[in-house]
Amino acid sequence: MNMKDLVRKSRSYRRFNQSYDINGEALRDLIRLAQYSPTGNNRQPLKFWLSNTPEMNAMIFPHLGWAGALKDWNGPEEGERPSAYIIILGDTSIKKNFGVDPGISAQSIMLGAAELGLGGCMIGSARKDRLRQVLDIPKQYDILLVLALGKPAEKVVTETVGEDGDIRYYRDEEDVHHVPKRPLSELVVHDV
Amino acid sequence: MNMKDLVRKSRSYRRFNQSYDINGEALRDLIRLAQYSPTGNNRQPLKFWLSNTPEMNAMIFPHLGWAGALKDWNGPEEGERPSAYIIILGDTSIKKNFGVDPGISAQSIMLGAAELGLGGCMIGSARKDRLRQVLDIPKQYDILLVLALGKPAEKVVTETVGEDGDIRYYRDEEDVHHVPKRPLSELVVHDV
Repeated sequence: MNMKDLVRKSRSYRRFNQSYDINGEALRDLIRLAQYSPTGNNRQPLKFWLSNTPEMNAMIFPHLGWAGALKDWNGPEEGERPSAYIIILGDTSIKKNFGVDPGISAQSIMLGAAELGLGGCMIGSARKDRLRQVLDIPKQYDILLVLALGKPAEKVVTETVGEDGDIRYYRDEEDVHHVPKRPLSELVVHDV
Repeated sequence: MNMKDLVRKSRSYRRFNQSYDINGEALRDLIRLAQYSPTGNNRQPLKFWLSNTPEMNAMIFPHLGWAGALKDWNGPEEGERPSAYIIILGDTSIKKNFGVDPGISAQSIMLGAAELGLGGCMIGSARKDRLRQVLDIPKQYDILLVLALGKPAEKVVTETVGEDGDIRYYRDEEDVHHVPKRPLSELVVHDV
C-alpha cells in the first residue's frame, strides 16, 4: 500500500474485536519497524513492553485515558477492548530526554499495524505511576506512550474542519466517528 | 513498498545531488501525509514552512547541525546539500507543548520521501533563533524540527551493534556511512 493510502487508513481506533488475537511475532515485527526508525543522534534510547494476554491487558486497561473529547464515553466496553499493547519506554540509562524519538517510533508502529489490517490509538494520557506499579516497570524506564492495538470494530471518517473551526472529533447518530482535519492551506505557513 | 522495506530504506542521508529539483507539489504531498497523521487530542497544532529555492535553502543551511558523531565533517559541501527543507513549527496559538506530535509527522514525511526515492535527515540541532531571524518566522510559531530533503548521494548501511556497545555511526574508507542498530532482544524489555 502506498504511503498516502496507508496514512489515511491509519486512523485512531478505540473500539475493537477483543477476541481477535495479535500474536507475539506480529508485535515483534512492529518493534522491528521502530528498531530501524531514526532516533536523535542514533542513541536508540527507546525500549518496548509488549502485552497480548487477557491477564496483562486487563492490568493495563484501567490506567489509560480514552477520547477526552467524547464526554459521555469512558472508553471501550469489555469485548471491544484492545488485543495488545506496546508501551514505549525511555531508557534513562541511555539519556534523560527523549525528544521526538517516541513519536517517530510510534508512527512507524501504527503504520505497520494499519498495513496488517490492525488499528489502534496512541495514548499519552495514561496514569503512568499506576502502570508502573501494576506491571512492575523498573524505574530505569520512563513511560512515554502506550500504543493500544486491535482489530478495529468501528468506522472512522475524516472530514475538513468546518467554518466554526471546531477540531473536536464526534460520533454521529449511526455511531460513526468523525475526525475534522484542518485544510492544507491552513497548515502551510510558507509555501513554494 | 511494504513498511518493512520502506522503513529500512528511509535512512538518514546527509549528502545529496543538490541539482536535483524537488517541486512544490511533491512537498505539499508530503505535508498531506502529516495532515492525516495523528496529533494529541486531534488538536493539529503543527504548521509547515517549505523551502526549495537555492536562495532560501542557502539562508537555512548555515544554521543546521550535521552529524554530531562525525567529528571531522562539518556537513555537506556546496553541490551535495539538500534540495528542499520542511521546517516543522508548533503553533502556540493552538497549544504550548507539542509532545510527540512533531515526531509522528516527521516520520510520515520521511517515509513518504523515501517512497519517492528521496531521502534526508531530521535535524533537531538547528540554531532556532538564527533561523527565525533570517526567515522572519513569526513568534507565534515554535521551531520544532527541520527536515532536510534531497536525492541521496551517499551509501548508508545498517549493522548490528558490536560487543563494545558503540552506537555511533561512522564512515568507512570507501565513504560508506555505517549505522549500528541495537538488536531486537535489547529493545524488548517485556516479551510475549
